[in-house]
Amino acid sequence: MTERDQRETRERKGLIIVHTGNGKGKTTAALGMLLRAWGHGMRPCVIQFIKSRKGRWGEIKAAERLGIEWHRLGDGFVRRHGMARHGMAGHGVARSSDPTEAMDRARETWELAQGKIASGDYDLIILDEFTYPLKEGWVDTERVVAWLGEHKPSGLHLVITGRHAPAELLALADLVTEMGKLKHPYDRGIGAQAGIEF
Amino acid sequence: MTERDQRETRERKGLIIVHTGNGKGKTTAALGMLLRAWGHGMRPCVIQFIKSRKGRWGEIKAAERLGIEWHRLGDGFVRRHGMARHGMAGHGVARSSDPTEAMDRARETWELAQGKIASGDYDLIILDEFTYPLKEGWVDTERVVAWLGEHKPSGLHLVITGRHAPAELLALADLVTEMGKLKHPYDRGIGAQAGIEF
Repeated sequence: MTERDQRETRERKGLIIVHTGNGKGKTTAALGMLLRAWGHGMRPCVIQFIKSRKGRWGEIKAAERLGIEWHRLGDGFVRRHGMARHGMAGHGVARSSDPTEAMDRARETWELAQGKIASGDYDLIILDEFTYPLKEGWVDTERVVAWLGEHKPSGLHLVITGRHAPAELLALADLVTEMGKLKHPYDRGIGAQAGIEF
Repeated sequence: MTERDQRETRERKGLIIVHTGNGKGKTTAALGMLLRAWGHGMRPCVIQFIKSRKGRWGEIKAAERLGIEWHRLGDGFVRRHGMARHGMAGHGVARSSDPTEAMDRARETWELAQGKIASGDYDLIILDEFTYPLKEGWVDTERVVAWLGEHKPSGLHLVITGRHAPAELLALADLVTEMGKLKHPYDRGIGAQAGIEF
């Protein structure tokens, strides 16, 4: 293998990237990568494992306008009991009154993610707040790590965000950044800002 | 003032945000805010205080396609000695062989930033790597802090990125996140990846 080949092999390496910690910027930095990838003409996809109260409208609107594929937890979920819940005002999984439903939604979303990852159709996939179902034990971390080792295409960049990233996931990752909170406006009674936090 | 008025006042508060630390994600998280702001139909502007070797092509291409205003260090700079330097292949200020020129470029870029900030024409302004000229002493931190206190429009979100953010700047900021490096692919001989780091 020539030096040039080695360099090109390195250059095509798809990374597993984790943004964790208690500070701001985990999802936001993933969105920055999304913008970069889009700028390069790459094929990105976002899968959200939490529906936040604020809904992430800024990024969802932007993704729609850019034609970026974006899946939210429970988008394809059919409730077993009664009506399906739909619409932008959906509750976050953490706030669901039915833990079984929350677990089912998380698992279904991971299955969706597996399909996207294994498809080879993407250059960058963001699993936003994926640490949440891992921490809850709804999706088994060891099985996720083993599955990724077997099925993640070598050229695919995979970005996982969320607090409390499990050690097995950190061990697997190529790049880990911990976003630490030094100062936060909530501490001073300032509310969440459009364009900044959602 | 009614409760609703108070809430709306809070909601319109323009934040000063600092992303610092030795980890990845400082500029990238600022780009995520840029994407959010654009999604909300807000008016953003980016001013870069370093020209990196990799050039940040992904985000510059994306910003061009989105119609986002983007200024790079030295774009408008006219050299005193000989020809002006132009073009995408320009050296970073840190690599300039002429420290006086580097200082002049940084100061000129801060003047540009002052004009943009004071204009009231923007909702979000990103001063990328602005800590660099502050740390070098090319732009005086105390004067910057005093100037911002007087001239920053109250509704403007200002994001400042870079390592070694000075204490005076942290004191002024509403939101500070420290990006800490837990693990980095360079440590394992993996090169910078398009769409991820540039």
